[in-house]
Amino acid sequence: MSLPKSENASTLENAMQLMIQTFHKYSGNEGDKYTLSRSELKEMLTTELGTYLGNAQDKEAVDKVMGDLDSNNDGEVDFTEFIILIGALTVACNDFFQEYNDKQEKKNP
Amino acid sequence: MSLPKSENASTLENAMQLMIQTFHKYSGNEGDKYTLSRSELKEMLTTELGTYLGNAQDKEAVDKVMGDLDSNNDGEVDFTEFIILIGALTVACNDFFQEYNDKQEKKNP
Repeated sequence: MSLPKSENASTLENAMQLMIQTFHKYSGNEGDKYTLSRSELKEMLTTELGTYLGNAQDKEAVDKVMGDLDSNNDGEVDFTEFIILIGALTVACNDFFQEYNDKQEKKNP
Repeated sequence: MSLPKSENASTLENAMQLMIQTFHKYSGNEGDKYTLSRSELKEMLTTELGTYLGNAQDKEAVDKVMGDLDSNNDGEVDFTEFIILIGALTVACNDFFQEYNDKQEKKNP
């Protein structure tokens, strides 16, 4: 899927576009082109989120993420389910950075 | 707030980092540095999401977004509330692009 180019996109609009592009990069490989199958999800997790989800190579870990995300139990992850995962991970990262920042400020006030 | 640099971040990790950076760019201006006040929210909406939320200049529109987002009614938007807004907007954009793509494919099969 190609997105219309936006010349003057803001930082936040760029972030939104990157999430949409990433999803479709994997969802288009097999089956329904607008959802992630189990093997597309696994490829996305290992390629894009290796840092966060270290052991996603592991079949059990992929099954667990799929089970948690696939709220309508159709064996596919749609875009809304994908955004819920990314949102939850981003909130977790932000908590981590805020704590890190608070500690740094206590050290060097 | 400065984030630790990640040299080999994936596209998706970059998108996550851009969302965190954007939030803190505005939240740090006044009051609680980890939440958006009404005026910080307004600045963020007009600067970052002008394309999507055309009339956010309008005080009523900012009040409406604040009212919808500020689920705990403290007059501030925290990072989780911000991510819910961005997630909802991204899902809406993705719906739009999928429909656009389907129409293009019908035209040029």
